[in-house]
Amino acid sequence: MGLTLAALAAGVEPRLALANGAEALPSWSDGAARKRILDFIAASVTEGSPGYVRPEDRIAVFDNDGTLWCEQPAYFQLIFGIDRIRALAPEHPEWKDQEPYKSVLAGDLKALAAQGEHALLEVIMQTHAGMSTEQFLDISKQWLATAEHPRFKRRYDTLIYQPMLELLVHLRSQGYQTWIVSGGGIEFIRAFAEPVYGIPPQQVVGSSIVTEFQIVDGQPQLMRLPKIDFIDDKAGKPVGINKFIGRRPVFAAGNSDGDLEMLQWTTAGDGPRFGMIVHHTDAEREYAYDRQSSIGRLDKALDQSEANGWLVVDMKNDWTRIFPAM
Amino acid sequence: MGLTLAALAAGVEPRLALANGAEALPSWSDGAARKRILDFIAASVTEGSPGYVRPEDRIAVFDNDGTLWCEQPAYFQLIFGIDRIRALAPEHPEWKDQEPYKSVLAGDLKALAAQGEHALLEVIMQTHAGMSTEQFLDISKQWLATAEHPRFKRRYDTLIYQPMLELLVHLRSQGYQTWIVSGGGIEFIRAFAEPVYGIPPQQVVGSSIVTEFQIVDGQPQLMRLPKIDFIDDKAGKPVGINKFIGRRPVFAAGNSDGDLEMLQWTTAGDGPRFGMIVHHTDAEREYAYDRQSSIGRLDKALDQSEANGWLVVDMKNDWTRIFPAM
Repeated sequence: MGLTLAALAAGVEPRLALANGAEALPSWSDGAARKRILDFIAASVTEGSPGYVRPEDRIAVFDNDGTLWCEQPAYFQLIFGIDRIRALAPEHPEWKDQEPYKSVLAGDLKALAAQGEHALLEVIMQTHAGMSTEQFLDISKQWLATAEHPRFKRRYDTLIYQPMLELLVHLRSQGYQTWIVSGGGIEFIRAFAEPVYGIPPQQVVGSSIVTEFQIVDGQPQLMRLPKIDFIDDKAGKPVGINKFIGRRPVFAAGNSDGDLEMLQWTTAGDGPRFGMIVHHTDAEREYAYDRQSSIGRLDKALDQSEANGWLVVDMKNDWTRIFPAM
Repeated sequence: MGLTLAALAAGVEPRLALANGAEALPSWSDGAARKRILDFIAASVTEGSPGYVRPEDRIAVFDNDGTLWCEQPAYFQLIFGIDRIRALAPEHPEWKDQEPYKSVLAGDLKALAAQGEHALLEVIMQTHAGMSTEQFLDISKQWLATAEHPRFKRRYDTLIYQPMLELLVHLRSQGYQTWIVSGGGIEFIRAFAEPVYGIPPQQVVGSSIVTEFQIVDGQPQLMRLPKIDFIDDKAGKPVGINKFIGRRPVFAAGNSDGDLEMLQWTTAGDGPRFGMIVHHTDAEREYAYDRQSSIGRLDKALDQSEANGWLVVDMKNDWTRIFPAM
């Protein structure tokens, strides 16, 4: 119900409706990848099937950057962070000579990316502090409503993968809870996850900075402090899943080595399990990158996919459409 | 659906069924407290009412110790911890001369309690580490299945408050998500919350120790380390609520000063809000304690209840029954 209201409000209802028709996953090519997904889900809701999954165990987790939405030419939250650093720079003259701020202010995304994901995340966290949680939510929503992707010339929150949206909707229609488990900031993702994906705030797991309860002018507030609380990436993902969900998922989808441990943790469980990797193979419609990319590097997880039986989705061939129609 | 299955498995279905009849909250006296609760909930689901709450905002949070189940003569998790310290003591000879272990091993709960809630929590955390999350769950469930309360001579997980169970069920029947937000350990509570309260693991917020992802003999595991990760008590409760739920609840129930900030945070929000304090006033059927108690001290929150419009529930007079029939 929250989904319908929120989706209508955001104008995504027509996209969601696509997947609610007679045929599930319409933007997936009629091939082996689509069949494996549909077969797993169908078995999981069939009592008596060896692939049956009890309703309370139907937990599906999704990475966000590069799995549910685009992550090039840089993580969208990083681009948001860059805009914010520029706005805050006059108050921080020391940033001019200090990496990674120096690269950020120079607009040199490559130099920034070369400093590694953890550094990127730290920059983001540092520049997202010094305000209340409600103020941060407002700033995030405002940015999402106005900023435009340099290549596709549309709002960042419309650069979501239509086939993955259909997968989310289909899983939910079969009784699955769909969760985001992202290296990105939990509060940033919450600013759009419900209207865009139909995923409510309480089903978002992500990285976080420390918040502190304060009473200011008689009003309780949660202030965001410039201190990292939790990095929900790599080995942090199973930790985050256990902390927030408290159950091992049966279905996990990712696209990079940051998702390796989440895929291992999910598919090592007993009974039916499904691991999926979105492989960015489509330079024409989106981007093509894997082992050499500093953003969303896919190397070890690709090597381990066959032995673990993870489905590697070939964006170019398995998806008939990448983004929703505008 | 999870609720029904789990409840049947745990044999609590007859208790839950009580609240599903024609009359909600049957174990509440027919007085002002019951009326205020029912009126708030009824208005919150009536579109057009000034008390209306949108379905996605129907989040209700409950403290656990002293609010949903008994917390005397000591927090049940502490009693579990004491049993565990005794089992581990041979490996830790230094504990004999070291507080708070010394008091624990001497069985001196009063001396232990006098050292404060934070110390108690630390002892619990320290003694809950050194094993995988799955092993800890097994140990917790085993203890709950066998240990007996010294006064009531029944399993600890049957010493839940029947009127509060009815409230949980009634709230859920009206579209509310019911969450536990406890100073107790999140994994310990998850060992019983679903069969006992109908609250799934992913709706439990609590204190935690650090877990670490490890691959042991090729199998991914989450190991529990002897290091505190988060204390979900006092000012930590709004922080935990924001972290896990990402929405401000509309309904909060607690029983001690540990719940003060949760009540403040919840009821300071715009629109309809409900704050409730369970006041332990019944020495005959349960226990009577408030301002002077080292366990579940209720002092500041009681002082602030009137100005904030929080309902103070008088267990002795407002509840016709305390625990479920066995």
